[in-house]
Amino acid sequence: MKIGLIGLGKMGLNLGQNLIDHNHEVVAFDVNQQSVEEMVKHGAQGTTSYKELIESLQMPRIIWIMVPHPVVDSVIDEITPFLEKGDIVIEAGNSHYKESVRRYNHLKEYGIHFMDAGTSGGMEGARNGANYMVGGDKEAWEIVEPIFKDTAAENGYLYTGEAGSGHYLKMVHNGIEYGMMAAIGEGFEVLEKSQFDYDYEKVAKLWNHGSVIRSWLMELTEQAFSKDAKLDGIKGVMHSSGEGKWTVEEALDLQAATPVIAMSLLMRYRSLDSDTFNGKVVAALRNEFGGHAVEKK
Amino acid sequence: MKIGLIGLGKMGLNLGQNLIDHNHEVVAFDVNQQSVEEMVKHGAQGTTSYKELIESLQMPRIIWIMVPHPVVDSVIDEITPFLEKGDIVIEAGNSHYKESVRRYNHLKEYGIHFMDAGTSGGMEGARNGANYMVGGDKEAWEIVEPIFKDTAAENGYLYTGEAGSGHYLKMVHNGIEYGMMAAIGEGFEVLEKSQFDYDYEKVAKLWNHGSVIRSWLMELTEQAFSKDAKLDGIKGVMHSSGEGKWTVEEALDLQAATPVIAMSLLMRYRSLDSDTFNGKVVAALRNEFGGHAVEKK
Amino acid sequence: MKIGLIGLGKMGLNLGQNLIDHNHEVVAFDVNQQSVEEMVKHGAQGTTSYKELIESLQMPRIIWIMVPHPVVDSVIDEITPFLEKGDIVIEAGNSHYKESVRRYNHLKEYGIHFMDAGTSGGMEGARNGANYMVGGDKEAWEIVEPIFKDTAAENGYLYTGEAGSGHYLKMVHNGIEYGMMAAIGEGFEVLEKSQFDYDYEKVAKLWNHGSVIRSWLMELTEQAFSKDAKLDGIKGVMHSSGEGKWTVEEALDLQAATPVIAMSLLMRYRSLDSDTFNGKVVAALRNEFGGHAVEKK
Amino acid sequence: MKIGLIGLGKMGLNLGQNLIDHNHEVVAFDVNQQSVEEMVKHGAQGTTSYKELIESLQMPRIIWIMVPHPVVDSVIDEITPFLEKGDIVIEAGNSHYKESVRRYNHLKEYGIHFMDAGTSGGMEGARNGANYMVGGDKEAWEIVEPIFKDTAAENGYLYTGEAGSGHYLKMVHNGIEYGMMAAIGEGFEVLEKSQFDYDYEKVAKLWNHGSVIRSWLMELTEQAFSKDAKLDGIKGVMHSSGEGKWTVEEALDLQAATPVIAMSLLMRYRSLDSDTFNGKVVAALRNEFGGHAVEKK
Repeated sequence: MKIGLIGLGKMGLNLGQNLIDHNHEVVAFDVNQQSVEEMVKHGAQGTTSYKELIESLQMPRIIWIMVPHPVVDSVIDEITPFLEKGDIVIEAGNSHYKESVRRYNHLKEYGIHFMDAGTSGGMEGARNGANYMVGGDKEAWEIVEPIFKDTAAENGYLYTGEAGSGHYLKMVHNGIEYGMMAAIGEGFEVLEKSQFDYDYEKVAKLWNHGSVIRSWLMELTEQAFSKDAKLDGIKGVMHSSGEGKWTVEEALDLQAATPVIAMSLLMRYRSLDSDTFNGKVVAALRNEFGGHAVEKK
Repeated sequence: MKIGLIGLGKMGLNLGQNLIDHNHEVVAFDVNQQSVEEMVKHGAQGTTSYKELIESLQMPRIIWIMVPHPVVDSVIDEITPFLEKGDIVIEAGNSHYKESVRRYNHLKEYGIHFMDAGTSGGMEGARNGANYMVGGDKEAWEIVEPIFKDTAAENGYLYTGEAGSGHYLKMVHNGIEYGMMAAIGEGFEVLEKSQFDYDYEKVAKLWNHGSVIRSWLMELTEQAFSKDAKLDGIKGVMHSSGEGKWTVEEALDLQAATPVIAMSLLMRYRSLDSDTFNGKVVAALRNEFGGHAVEKK
Repeated sequence: MKIGLIGLGKMGLNLGQNLIDHNHEVVAFDVNQQSVEEMVKHGAQGTTSYKELIESLQMPRIIWIMVPHPVVDSVIDEITPFLEKGDIVIEAGNSHYKESVRRYNHLKEYGIHFMDAGTSGGMEGARNGANYMVGGDKEAWEIVEPIFKDTAAENGYLYTGEAGSGHYLKMVHNGIEYGMMAAIGEGFEVLEKSQFDYDYEKVAKLWNHGSVIRSWLMELTEQAFSKDAKLDGIKGVMHSSGEGKWTVEEALDLQAATPVIAMSLLMRYRSLDSDTFNGKVVAALRNEFGGHAVEKK
Repeated sequence: MKIGLIGLGKMGLNLGQNLIDHNHEVVAFDVNQQSVEEMVKHGAQGTTSYKELIESLQMPRIIWIMVPHPVVDSVIDEITPFLEKGDIVIEAGNSHYKESVRRYNHLKEYGIHFMDAGTSGGMEGARNGANYMVGGDKEAWEIVEPIFKDTAAENGYLYTGEAGSGHYLKMVHNGIEYGMMAAIGEGFEVLEKSQFDYDYEKVAKLWNHGSVIRSWLMELTEQAFSKDAKLDGIKGVMHSSGEGKWTVEEALDLQAATPVIAMSLLMRYRSLDSDTFNGKVVAALRNEFGGHAVEKK
């Protein structure tokens, strides 16, 4: 099929090649023309404007948007004037599901189909076989399913139903991911503070061969330790890009008890601070009632 | 090799068959003679006493103990009189590492090698390829390594060093397992309370094909949902058998912050109670200061 | 001073009497005329409409709104047409601070002052000496300060600065309250499960006389146990009315690690469910890999 | 009454003065003779050995031990030879209740009464009115009750029953204290990161006058901020001296869900580390699967 691909960052460039590998035609655009040129080298048709991109496609046009979530709305606003009834917009970034529902309803007014495609598997997945959770209209899904099938890992895609359900599922996927990563991190924290002297790469490798906790994340753990045996070169600062927070916020709205996911998120925040006001208050209180020494700055 | 296998429960019977498949000779004993008979059907030599079992082996004798951890000491006490210098006792159950260090030191007085072999992979692993973390004397390890190699999954065994390090690593493995399972459980909790209607078996299957959280535990999740789509038939009571608790206790001793593993454990305890005194106190307090209604029994 | 009091629920009726005790004139309105009649019995002037209420006041009019937060906006909308430049609206309920900032800005367009007054101390406080955290314009504060001073506990009021800062501080106050209540509840949970047999009323009373944890909440704990020694008559279902949730949401926005407040909230949610899907998933997983028994329904 | 006081640290010296204020005779000993001299200045009779101390008392002798818990056993071992049937040993430090039960049973063999007296209220309490939770034999309690009554805050003592129940209750008291302090600390953490600019001393003072969270800990918070408005001079390192850990360990043994107390403890441990291995593992994983940048050392 012929697909308009907007957004040629790390994920978009890999996905573009994946599409081309599977004999799809990619018409590409990015605000950064160098990225367009790189995509062209891999066999895509480059364009220099949204208008050109969209006019290069046949109806129903299929537009795949893979841009950072803060710019999704402006991209949609810019392309909407050139789109027509029956066209299909696939938004495959990490958007909040409520935004996707809003966008779906907005484009529906123009007769345009909007599909929210949660995408997992990292850059490697985008290149060789991603994992997709896709919400939106069933009739649009039937048109675009082959694109997902071809670029996904085997069995690595699912039509999840109504608008928003794709990004929702991806959000929860990431919440689980936060919890799993924290569990792994805490396990190695205990090992590191223990009386024993383990080779962490060997431990992670071992756990990937027949243990209950074998997983892709443990394989990545092995990979990370193979590059830096004690991770001496990096700091334990854990940034986050939103989906874990959204999961916790959603859990609060649903009154669902999710302590593990919540703690995995809060410990990421804790890692951003080298010292805490919280700690100062508690240290000062211990000093006040028990005369316990505080550490001076 | 010829191995004395003590303990023919779920794990022992599977391990025995695994050993026999790999051309080891198994001399088996269990306090339950029916289990011995079953093991004999699979090709083992049955015995009716610890004495007979041990006298059936050549020196250095290799004894593999796979019994519930509360009876490990009594088994060791009963076999010790028949053992001699150079014999090797492998304890492959879920013992606390401090117990293993104690047992190691105790048997060392008699010149007997004690090896603590943490075993993961469940019953299926015991049958077809387990995961082993083994601590103890290096010289003993060199003798018994082939047994572990043969019955492990490919690359699924590791000599972890001094006595206790095997069970310690298994303990931490289980701590991570608690955290991962809780993360998965919480994710589905959110899905279940959400506005969307997901097919959980399909979701778990999807996540096993290319997503970041693909893992054996997610495969088991898929399997569980394939048998009971909404788990309607069971209660959410989460029992535990000790290793998660040990991990948290160890973390406290090491002053290691492990909130995710700790919360996964505490939520298991919470699930054992249908109501809590804690909750009553808080409900009563809300009533006292704000006149908020309490739910009467 | 002469004050228009809107909202004669548990808090409003108590506050009205408190105002009257301190020689303020109260002009009262509630959608429920029976509440108005009750307020009149205590010395207030009753009215039958917002218009009548506001026309009974001199400029600058002082309107004290004490209604459930979902209806605050409609009350403001109904009274705004009758208000004039320089009038002062005090909103003393449990509103989200962002709502208060919005309302402040909205009324500012009409030259009307809006003050957000977080109120603590429960019904007893409203009657005999409340605790106020008040944000809004300084010039309006200087007019209304006497009202707060008279109806507060001694030293029990603070002008906290710009609009929203009063309700913000009240929100955080409640977050701390959630954490403290949970700590108390958990302590008694341990006592209840312990091998010892304590008299909880005596314990709470003791702790209020010289211990580090003496506090009003512990006094209320004593009071609760004095009425029902083991709280046998009530269920441990912990409802919540929003401020704890807001505190956690705010903490997430600020990337502030607040695990204790977060857990106190999540355990309230947990108490609303008699069983959890989370627990079912974990129980099913334990069965899948280890053959551990599940509890059937 | 005449009391043998062993241990003249911060707590012991204050308690000694408190006893003397209430017309008790204090015979004092400490391994540090300077402390003895200081106690003598306040009216005590000084001694230079355990033997001398005990021989200065009449039977039944009352010995009050107030030493750090690691040396309690050696003190008991040293005095036991000089004690006789019917004598009463009061251990008023922060010992683990299981140690107290053991000591009780040990001294019982000699006919000596052992009482475990959990003591709260800090140094100020020891001086002017402490808070006591006392376990041990009822017949001994009847003899020593006046000492507790005189040196406690009004109503600030309780006979809690069998041996160990005093220190147990003190342990749980401290667990609650950890949770309350953490709740307060987290509240101020949110305020500090907020968009508003609060005067923390005024906030704490306000909250102590009529709010739901008024408490001695909040008074100490006010006091701490009065000395250092933003706690700029100290670090947020939160040490701990054991009772919080014991509470969590006990909760694990009882399978009691105490997430708030557990998190307050784990965050103390977290504050001891400037960086974590946990964090490095998670940061490395994010880099592996998503190419997210890590912070280099």
